[in-house]
Amino acid sequence: MKATQMPHRADGRKPLDLRPVSIELDATPHAEGSCLIRQGVTRVLIAATVEEKTPPFLRDRGEGWVTAEYGMLPRATHERTPREAVRGRQSGRTLEIQRLIGRALRGVVDRKAFPDLTITLDCDVVVADAGTRCASVTGAFVALALALERLSKEKRIRARPIRELVAAVSVGLLSAPLPPARAIVALDLDYSEDSTAEVDLNIVGTSSGRFVEVQGIAEGKPFDDADLAAMIEAGRKGLTKLFLVQREVLEGRVPDEWLDRRSVP
Amino acid sequence: MKATQMPHRADGRKPLDLRPVSIELDATPHAEGSCLIRQGVTRVLIAATVEEKTPPFLRDRGEGWVTAEYGMLPRATHERTPREAVRGRQSGRTLEIQRLIGRALRGVVDRKAFPDLTITLDCDVVVADAGTRCASVTGAFVALALALERLSKEKRIRARPIRELVAAVSVGLLSAPLPPARAIVALDLDYSEDSTAEVDLNIVGTSSGRFVEVQGIAEGKPFDDADLAAMIEAGRKGLTKLFLVQREVLEGRVPDEWLDRRSVP
Amino acid sequence: MKATQMPHRADGRKPLDLRPVSIELDATPHAEGSCLIRQGVTRVLIAATVEEKTPPFLRDRGEGWVTAEYGMLPRATHERTPREAVRGRQSGRTLEIQRLIGRALRGVVDRKAFPDLTITLDCDVVVADAGTRCASVTGAFVALALALERLSKEKRIRARPIRELVAAVSVGLLSAPLPPARAIVALDLDYSEDSTAEVDLNIVGTSSGRFVEVQGIAEGKPFDDADLAAMIEAGRKGLTKLFLVQREVLEGRVPDEWLDRRSVP
Amino acid sequence: MKATQMPHRADGRKPLDLRPVSIELDATPHAEGSCLIRQGVTRVLIAATVEEKTPPFLRDRGEGWVTAEYGMLPRATHERTPREAVRGRQSGRTLEIQRLIGRALRGVVDRKAFPDLTITLDCDVVVADAGTRCASVTGAFVALALALERLSKEKRIRARPIRELVAAVSVGLLSAPLPPARAIVALDLDYSEDSTAEVDLNIVGTSSGRFVEVQGIAEGKPFDDADLAAMIEAGRKGLTKLFLVQREVLEGRVPDEWLDRRSVP
Amino acid sequence: MKATQMPHRADGRKPLDLRPVSIELDATPHAEGSCLIRQGVTRVLIAATVEEKTPPFLRDRGEGWVTAEYGMLPRATHERTPREAVRGRQSGRTLEIQRLIGRALRGVVDRKAFPDLTITLDCDVVVADAGTRCASVTGAFVALALALERLSKEKRIRARPIRELVAAVSVGLLSAPLPPARAIVALDLDYSEDSTAEVDLNIVGTSSGRFVEVQGIAEGKPFDDADLAAMIEAGRKGLTKLFLVQREVLEGRVPDEWLDRRSVP
Amino acid sequence: MKATQMPHRADGRKPLDLRPVSIELDATPHAEGSCLIRQGVTRVLIAATVEEKTPPFLRDRGEGWVTAEYGMLPRATHERTPREAVRGRQSGRTLEIQRLIGRALRGVVDRKAFPDLTITLDCDVVVADAGTRCASVTGAFVALALALERLSKEKRIRARPIRELVAAVSVGLLSAPLPPARAIVALDLDYSEDSTAEVDLNIVGTSSGRFVEVQGIAEGKPFDDADLAAMIEAGRKGLTKLFLVQREVLEGRVPDEWLDRRSVP
Repeated sequence: MKATQMPHRADGRKPLDLRPVSIELDATPHAEGSCLIRQGVTRVLIAATVEEKTPPFLRDRGEGWVTAEYGMLPRATHERTPREAVRGRQSGRTLEIQRLIGRALRGVVDRKAFPDLTITLDCDVVVADAGTRCASVTGAFVALALALERLSKEKRIRARPIRELVAAVSVGLLSAPLPPARAIVALDLDYSEDSTAEVDLNIVGTSSGRFVEVQGIAEGKPFDDADLAAMIEAGRKGLTKLFLVQREVLEGRVPDEWLDRRSVP
Repeated sequence: MKATQMPHRADGRKPLDLRPVSIELDATPHAEGSCLIRQGVTRVLIAATVEEKTPPFLRDRGEGWVTAEYGMLPRATHERTPREAVRGRQSGRTLEIQRLIGRALRGVVDRKAFPDLTITLDCDVVVADAGTRCASVTGAFVALALALERLSKEKRIRARPIRELVAAVSVGLLSAPLPPARAIVALDLDYSEDSTAEVDLNIVGTSSGRFVEVQGIAEGKPFDDADLAAMIEAGRKGLTKLFLVQREVLEGRVPDEWLDRRSVP
Repeated sequence: MKATQMPHRADGRKPLDLRPVSIELDATPHAEGSCLIRQGVTRVLIAATVEEKTPPFLRDRGEGWVTAEYGMLPRATHERTPREAVRGRQSGRTLEIQRLIGRALRGVVDRKAFPDLTITLDCDVVVADAGTRCASVTGAFVALALALERLSKEKRIRARPIRELVAAVSVGLLSAPLPPARAIVALDLDYSEDSTAEVDLNIVGTSSGRFVEVQGIAEGKPFDDADLAAMIEAGRKGLTKLFLVQREVLEGRVPDEWLDRRSVP
Repeated sequence: MKATQMPHRADGRKPLDLRPVSIELDATPHAEGSCLIRQGVTRVLIAATVEEKTPPFLRDRGEGWVTAEYGMLPRATHERTPREAVRGRQSGRTLEIQRLIGRALRGVVDRKAFPDLTITLDCDVVVADAGTRCASVTGAFVALALALERLSKEKRIRARPIRELVAAVSVGLLSAPLPPARAIVALDLDYSEDSTAEVDLNIVGTSSGRFVEVQGIAEGKPFDDADLAAMIEAGRKGLTKLFLVQREVLEGRVPDEWLDRRSVP
Repeated sequence: MKATQMPHRADGRKPLDLRPVSIELDATPHAEGSCLIRQGVTRVLIAATVEEKTPPFLRDRGEGWVTAEYGMLPRATHERTPREAVRGRQSGRTLEIQRLIGRALRGVVDRKAFPDLTITLDCDVVVADAGTRCASVTGAFVALALALERLSKEKRIRARPIRELVAAVSVGLLSAPLPPARAIVALDLDYSEDSTAEVDLNIVGTSSGRFVEVQGIAEGKPFDDADLAAMIEAGRKGLTKLFLVQREVLEGRVPDEWLDRRSVP
Repeated sequence: MKATQMPHRADGRKPLDLRPVSIELDATPHAEGSCLIRQGVTRVLIAATVEEKTPPFLRDRGEGWVTAEYGMLPRATHERTPREAVRGRQSGRTLEIQRLIGRALRGVVDRKAFPDLTITLDCDVVVADAGTRCASVTGAFVALALALERLSKEKRIRARPIRELVAAVSVGLLSAPLPPARAIVALDLDYSEDSTAEVDLNIVGTSSGRFVEVQGIAEGKPFDDADLAAMIEAGRKGLTKLFLVQREVLEGRVPDEWLDRRSVP
């Protein structure tokens, strides 16, 4: 299979277009930091909580911790999804996603800057139209930055806590409409695309152009080197745009130096 | 203890003032009916789901069912509340509230109008500042009406499904600032009032001036007949205002006859 | 709907008759206080346990705690009810009832009289014929008084721990046998009445004529002010009789001053 | 260690004396068969439920099923035992005991006599002073016989359903008060004996002098052949007395032929 | 029913033959002691873990603890058995078996020899062909001895920790092929025998000829004294052979005095 | 950070050496297909079970299903890991791994070849020294092939069920011993390497040189394009060797055409 980039998608986007992305700050009043990220129809509410505790494995190490929890309102989805609190356990998918979000954030913070504090990012999907884990990462960075800024104002931060920005985006390999044609590399899949994509790649990247996580999964046929390279290239383009959105909303709210203004290759 | 009504509250409201209430329709795109109710700072997102099934005890009885689930985002509260899906079970409080919401709605619908269908109202608290169970009832009626109207358009309703409106409001007995004075009957408590109230009364009432549920609980000292009468009277005033809000948002969206325009005593 | 009181019930009782009530003290040998309450066919075994601990939120506040747990033997009911220990969780109904019992008792004790102690009332239904939550409250007060008396003998009480008596009773609105007639207000429903009542009201009241909790629920049609007033009036009559039974069995076993001999209006 | 039988026990019993045993029939009104067995201070309420169902592995085999569940009220014990419904699971001990009760009963019934029916014996310990599993077996046989007799009256039994009686008793090897003396074989241990016994043997035997189960466990030092023989001999004597009690209470209530009047060696 | 011993079994063994038994030491590299026991087709991997902790009831008593956990790989059995971690709880059978293994080992160790240490024996069935609980006991003794020897080398043992050997074996009463003939007492049942045996007896015995546990269960018809005596006699013969296997593999690895070279009657 | 490949590792391997790999077929007697894979010290037992059922979402689609479960013996690890059946749930890590194994296998089979059958691969880690998820994939392919071959012999397969081979390998980016030097790309990490690696990449690849899954995670510093390319290149080399091992053990056991003898680029 040879991947390519073709011009038309169901919602009129070009293959490398993101859906419209907006991030509304301070979306919930009690949290130490919060935002609502919208990416197309997908909507995730993110709240950062700062608590004076750390997990046992960090005791007496002078470090803080960043972790995440993920949930989905039952009717965020097209069909109602049973409530995990009723089922009595979080699904494997939920556990996998919240681990990913936590790792993404820990990849760009200096945990020695906020010793003995745990910051928990609650990412709750209000409307789901694919891409919820990536939108959670992108938005969680913003909520985390706001919480850290508040800590900074309260003089509870020892050093610059954020080394660079982190965001995530999905890329898919969509079957060509007509078989002889090549499959299409498409950025930021919506639900209709996601459910039929041949390959689904999630990239968690930083504003210096590096990766915290790359996870590509073939749902049907395996993918080859050229597919992988094209998808990573597409993802990188999407990340660049997401960093712009993050910087735009955080500018003036957090110290400039946290926003890593290096140009991204 | 003799209850009375005094003029001043922390947020400037008079004793029988509701907090500002607004209901935004169609708050979530996938649900058959939905709204976002705001009552002061409290915010609850409600989604109605219609499914072709009924519980076993209704098999072959030609009736439908209405039920509710209730949840709270972890950081809806001032301090973070652990996620019930992580704890592995819904709390007693959650179970109690969702049973109350279901009973309230079943009190005003004609379940024979939608045989073999179950309508589930998911009430998820986005921001909590007391009164979440009452706001859930008031909002859930609206989301239910929208879902029923959609069923009606699809010709899946056999008769007028709604007999009258239902809403709920809390009333509290607040300690008098100076002991010789009487305790104050206050309508629609916020968190700071709720956590110190001597008595907490929730009234679920209908637009014909009747009750589906009256639940008064003394948190400290017991209350007497006069307290109870004054609280019920106050609650009735609050309900009247809530029915106005419900009618206002539903007018034009659902058949006029569902909105029960009798004057309330 | 206009409520009234009519003369005949299936078991021959008049509308405002309680079922025969008896309370047998010291029903189980190991508990610090215990009794078996019978109300008609309903039978609940209640055991009070005193433990040297308090919940975290009471640490260092010089107060004790009173709480309750509720259970039902599987074959207490007409049909066998699955064992909650097998199902792996307590039902919403169970949690709701045990919270009610605990609140009722806390409404009449002075928790500063027994600092750093928790008294747990285990209410286990041996035979169920409706009214189990109310019988649990009425009996639990007796078991609690016995346990406090024992603490008093052991000089572990600082002050008079009981301010007044507390008991509970159910009242129902039963459909009139012939429609033009009014619905009947009936006291202390049995199972056959409870399962068909239009409204079910539980009153938790104290011997000074005040209320700790009033909870009225319409199972079918909503109820109006007159119904509510009539039901509360009926409940008050039932409570008066229950306080007599409590005083009779506790007289001579606990200090007279704990038995609050004021006349009830 | 050489076992022997010595004359004195804390409660005045001789080594081979049972505690006083009584069985009260029809102890709970709703069950198809029920009794309350008292053995010394120990008290177990047993209810038999007949349901028209069988486990999957018996489908279409023309057999019925007999099973048991076991529970303990929280304050049946000297110290309060946490409620299993609150802990969310039955303990290993509970599961082990209810399996034993079910096997004991299945050992003496002809399951082809009541095809497609399941009889569940709920054994709930109201007061525990050791020997609760054995008392449960002895009492459960009585409740089962009553339920089968009721089925027989209703013509739902195809053949004689009970082949012989079954009962259970504990035997212990108690440390000799003075070391040179031999350990004492004692029948039907109470709590103070049970918690210090060197060996604990439970015998489930039938009225023809045979065994359904023999389970001997050394809590401390292992036991030898002579110990085992002496304990089994003692258990057999206890069983003979228990069969007399069972026959006495069932005589006239169930057909004589069910009571297996063979003399026991 | 009169038991006897007849010459032929499905796999050619004589009634009192064990299946071939072998114990491979050091079967897993990380454990403090481990072995793989094979008994016929049955295979159990056993790992001993030493941890510096003891259960709460042993605090400050200068004793150690020995406990066991038991599990079965899903496809150890002929048909796949659902994984207990997926079902969310250990079955009653699993809990019963791991309690038996722990008791067996505690019956032969001197817990004062390793104060404040807990040794956990994980017995995981890799292939099941009946007899897994007995093989677990026999093998767990070997793994325990290896772990204790290691503690001894590290000077963490205060006294001789093992008083004698312990092993376990099953004995069954198999229906006679032709009814007039007697049932057969057979040692060490395999799955085909176990699933049809009339009586199943497990004996946990020590190398001095004594018992830690004897558990005989009639699956169908009850058994009599003669049956029991014959089964115990057969079990004793099996144990003698198992002690030889244990001694053979441990010889040279643990101090000779731990291997209790008394002749067994 | 610029990645490179340096010559020395703790166990003497060169950076691109795999640990010794062996796969023993038919490792457990009851399964339809099974093997034991050893990769260095890591050892995983894999059993394939064929059952006549499929998940609900495949009903009436003429397809089969392949799924996996993963577990770890408690003492597979250096320190004992609590048993998931005791904890009452599978961890997020376990759920994530078993989803990965299932996806890997589904990426190379033709599910239409075995309609209405589910094949479950149980991967149980007997000894863990890192790389258990990758070894599980590599071994599970072999067990699956054996099970499919058995189905083929029984004429229950409609078409060639395997399109190509699938295996998995880990690659890590290890910190350079001396800072100015570059980090080392190392293949098939063992535990000591895995716990300190800067980046951990798992590649699931097929014998045609394509990928089913690529998952790279930075544990500390993010990685760049060059790192990613070098790690993927290394992984590809490892996979080529693993396919040789798979082909070698399966040759003669399964049809030649299943073993995809194309050369790998």
